[in-house]
Amino acid sequence: MQIGFIGLGVMGAPMAANLIAAGHTVHLHRVKESTEHLVEAGGHRAGSAADAAKEADVVILMLPDTPDVEEVLFGTDGVAGALRPGALVIDMSSISPVATRSFAERITGAGGGYLDAPVSGGDVGARAGTLTILAGGTTAAFERATPLLEVLGATITHVGDVGAGQTAKVANQIIVALTIQAVAEGLTFAGAAGVDPAVVREALMGGFASSRILEVHGQRMVDHNYDPGFRIRLHRKDLGLALGSARAMDLPLPHTASAHEFMNAAIAQGLGEADHSALHRVLGNAAGRAAK
Amino acid sequence: MQIGFIGLGVMGAPMAANLIAAGHTVHLHRVKESTEHLVEAGGHRAGSAADAAKEADVVILMLPDTPDVEEVLFGTDGVAGALRPGALVIDMSSISPVATRSFAERITGAGGGYLDAPVSGGDVGARAGTLTILAGGTTAAFERATPLLEVLGATITHVGDVGAGQTAKVANQIIVALTIQAVAEGLTFAGAAGVDPAVVREALMGGFASSRILEVHGQRMVDHNYDPGFRIRLHRKDLGLALGSARAMDLPLPHTASAHEFMNAAIAQGLGEADHSALHRVLGNAAGRAAK
Amino acid sequence: MQIGFIGLGVMGAPMAANLIAAGHTVHLHRVKESTEHLVEAGGHRAGSAADAAKEADVVILMLPDTPDVEEVLFGTDGVAGALRPGALVIDMSSISPVATRSFAERITGAGGGYLDAPVSGGDVGARAGTLTILAGGTTAAFERATPLLEVLGATITHVGDVGAGQTAKVANQIIVALTIQAVAEGLTFAGAAGVDPAVVREALMGGFASSRILEVHGQRMVDHNYDPGFRIRLHRKDLGLALGSARAMDLPLPHTASAHEFMNAAIAQGLGEADHSALHRVLGNAAGRAAK
Amino acid sequence: MQIGFIGLGVMGAPMAANLIAAGHTVHLHRVKESTEHLVEAGGHRAGSAADAAKEADVVILMLPDTPDVEEVLFGTDGVAGALRPGALVIDMSSISPVATRSFAERITGAGGGYLDAPVSGGDVGARAGTLTILAGGTTAAFERATPLLEVLGATITHVGDVGAGQTAKVANQIIVALTIQAVAEGLTFAGAAGVDPAVVREALMGGFASSRILEVHGQRMVDHNYDPGFRIRLHRKDLGLALGSARAMDLPLPHTASAHEFMNAAIAQGLGEADHSALHRVLGNAAGRAAK
Repeated sequence: MQIGFIGLGVMGAPMAANLIAAGHTVHLHRVKESTEHLVEAGGHRAGSAADAAKEADVVILMLPDTPDVEEVLFGTDGVAGALRPGALVIDMSSISPVATRSFAERITGAGGGYLDAPVSGGDVGARAGTLTILAGGTTAAFERATPLLEVLGATITHVGDVGAGQTAKVANQIIVALTIQAVAEGLTFAGAAGVDPAVVREALMGGFASSRILEVHGQRMVDHNYDPGFRIRLHRKDLGLALGSARAMDLPLPHTASAHEFMNAAIAQGLGEADHSALHRVLGNAAGRAAK
Repeated sequence: MQIGFIGLGVMGAPMAANLIAAGHTVHLHRVKESTEHLVEAGGHRAGSAADAAKEADVVILMLPDTPDVEEVLFGTDGVAGALRPGALVIDMSSISPVATRSFAERITGAGGGYLDAPVSGGDVGARAGTLTILAGGTTAAFERATPLLEVLGATITHVGDVGAGQTAKVANQIIVALTIQAVAEGLTFAGAAGVDPAVVREALMGGFASSRILEVHGQRMVDHNYDPGFRIRLHRKDLGLALGSARAMDLPLPHTASAHEFMNAAIAQGLGEADHSALHRVLGNAAGRAAK
Repeated sequence: MQIGFIGLGVMGAPMAANLIAAGHTVHLHRVKESTEHLVEAGGHRAGSAADAAKEADVVILMLPDTPDVEEVLFGTDGVAGALRPGALVIDMSSISPVATRSFAERITGAGGGYLDAPVSGGDVGARAGTLTILAGGTTAAFERATPLLEVLGATITHVGDVGAGQTAKVANQIIVALTIQAVAEGLTFAGAAGVDPAVVREALMGGFASSRILEVHGQRMVDHNYDPGFRIRLHRKDLGLALGSARAMDLPLPHTASAHEFMNAAIAQGLGEADHSALHRVLGNAAGRAAK
Repeated sequence: MQIGFIGLGVMGAPMAANLIAAGHTVHLHRVKESTEHLVEAGGHRAGSAADAAKEADVVILMLPDTPDVEEVLFGTDGVAGALRPGALVIDMSSISPVATRSFAERITGAGGGYLDAPVSGGDVGARAGTLTILAGGTTAAFERATPLLEVLGATITHVGDVGAGQTAKVANQIIVALTIQAVAEGLTFAGAAGVDPAVVREALMGGFASSRILEVHGQRMVDHNYDPGFRIRLHRKDLGLALGSARAMDLPLPHTASAHEFMNAAIAQGLGEADHSALHRVLGNAAGRAAK
């Protein structure tokens, strides 16, 4: 299949590599020195977003934030002006659900198809092709995308109409952020009370407190290992999406709002580029204290 | 072994039954009509806490709150006055870690042994003998208690010195409460944005948002099934223990404090006896809204 | 003086009336039936923002939100295209400090002057000409605007450079929102504990708890008088500005974020158009309860 | 009048001095070197609480916390055992409203009268005899106490039945704490955005944001003057009373709970003995930043 792929960052580059390895013709926008290997592996250089899109059956986007997607789709030399009739845009970035619905309307109005399909699983999942993919769009669009999504991910869910994938991703980021806070407060309490957080983490893994976050991020807190992983600054962006959407719906998300403030505090303390498990530090867990 | 067992409620009664079934001689304090079956199964009636304790090698307590434990141990006709030299008190109630250390000091000062060993796993685990048990005390006390704890639970951890079991239990309750809030805000967000919370819950179970709470309580929220389970009023008590201990340590637990307020709000709205998954309701999820 | 006046709402209309009454030639954009009286009083109809600006020495804006100001200044038939060299734009709307700095740059780049001068004091103050005005801009711009501002307000402060007026207004809205929450929680506590909130309000007015909010909004809470006044929906907009700016500065504003969520909850409960003192209601003060 | 006075701390000592100066016979419990001047001024030494009470028409207490009042009233050599029939206990400490009702019941059961009459106004007000006094009890008790209260305070309110004084004091402490947070977040926002907090404070004093806290504590924040004043550790105690009572009433006090956590954080950062305006520091206002 002819694929345009735009956004060759930490996530996008290995995803594009997997599509090339699966035998697709992939037109790559913005090949840099660090992604030159994708061309060596058989990818094609495209001079612009339009250029990546013009022969494509499917255009995949993997970009940092809402304005980046808007620019690539509708800016100068953007995808929208070059898209073949009936071609499908799959936006795998994590962006605003509200903006997604508006982008989809403009693309479908111009004769294209649109699927939002944000992912979780990190760069490890991107390389291994085991991402969790949350897709929103028509059944036709989802079915058409499925063979490609199966190259990229292991758990693929058609969550609902266009925007539903982004909504589910935001829900995911809310739950992950607050579960990190949960584990941070629980283990900090134990440590401050003189009980070894490592033992508590282990003991609680069998019961109702068990979670992937307790397992993975709890271990990071115990080890004071804050190398990203997923950076606090990026997670704050996602909670910003949640709170912006919630505001538009008059929906209170009190703990999400509180977690957003703790991310602000963490960033102000110089932890913006640390893994989100470093939220633990805002409660006063310098290495010495938490280590007993 | 001669065992005194004090506290025959929803949890205590099936635990006592398991000890009787394992062949121990169990002296039961406060047999009521609803627990008469324990006598039929071979348990012995005791007229007071002292009476339950006087021949016991081990006295097990399973009581609602800190003052109940204090009364049973040190009140009129209490355990402390009747305890045989060298007998072991195992407090399996969930109470204050600080009070626990003081109770243990008084019991050991009087020649007894003390182990705090609160549990999680609910009445289902109590009946099945599969509780998670978090024990605090000396290695000698823990080893002596182990054969009995193995009758009652499946995962048994010696967390640390006396009080450490209660501390770990509090940490557990913090994490469980905040993870419920996490799932509540995530699924509420999805539902309010028009995406089916049931599908989102399912889709997220594969990734970093996965937890026992998402699995079990998430399903309850989807189904609007708030039959307890674990009551909000009791969970609030546990967060009260957390916040009281944290205050004594000058430790900020901001999200725990917030969750405590939401439990207050839930109780004020008449949800005190509902399962803690009903915290979901405080965000405005009447049956209609969350059900789409 | 020749004045263009754009934005004839609840605040803008009486402000324009005061300028006309002070003898200025005022070009009014968007005269509706409800503001026809301004023309009868001597105001001049303008067909567009450009039309209001083209002969003006000073153009005053009093608009709802940031995008409205952007549209009026830089949209089709906007102020920017018609502004005379050296004319001064005074934006008295409450909008984003960050956007303000960018608007000012564009206007000054085109040869105009710019002063941000948001107000507090409500429609009562607008009619009486007793507004509190918080101005940001060069000393030259402030001095030039002063004679007009003195027609409109009683307390006029040159807070700092361009944007400083908006920043001070945001600070004002933060303080007002949180002081309302303060009074709401204090009086609710008293009422719930069986003490008359009216007596408590009166007793506390002499001490450190005294504030304009306790005096005015406290009385509203006592009386269950929630006619606006200043609407919760508008106050939420202002806290949204605060949180957006804070995010850009990595600044934690935890109580502001919490108050924003309570405004969301109030709006979800149908109180969006009520006076902000109705935040009191979110704590459970239905008429019956707070009235004892 | 014969007065027993128990509690000669920073507040109690000058209050006792004022009563002596007004011509009363004052029996002083626990005269220390630092309060020897009260004896020189005509006060009488009492060897115990009972000794201070035994000839008194009125016994005044000014003690740190609930357990201190309980001990002095009902402990060994306590007031209750020595109180003359018909004598009046006036508790001017700030303690639990719930405990107050129980203490009053025991004292009246024993034939005495009881008035709770906590104060605000600090040691400055105590010395000057200008305290704000919030009294709870019967009208008879209040009228009997009034001549003495007028020696001690300037604004004296009979708030309601026994406990109502303590309830009003708690409401006061809630409002003061949250208004400090309000001012802290508002001025911090302004400072972080590059606007001088001193100018903003001054500009806002005319409008709806004005309060005693903005005036006094706002100036402290501007000056980084955190000498107490009223210590964060004591204010936390008062919010603890609020939250404990609220819990007993199933009442949510979300911002009070949040402020309590920020006091915990401040104390953990070593600010427990600083004036409560130092809550400002928890948002990151080191001297350098807030000073521009």
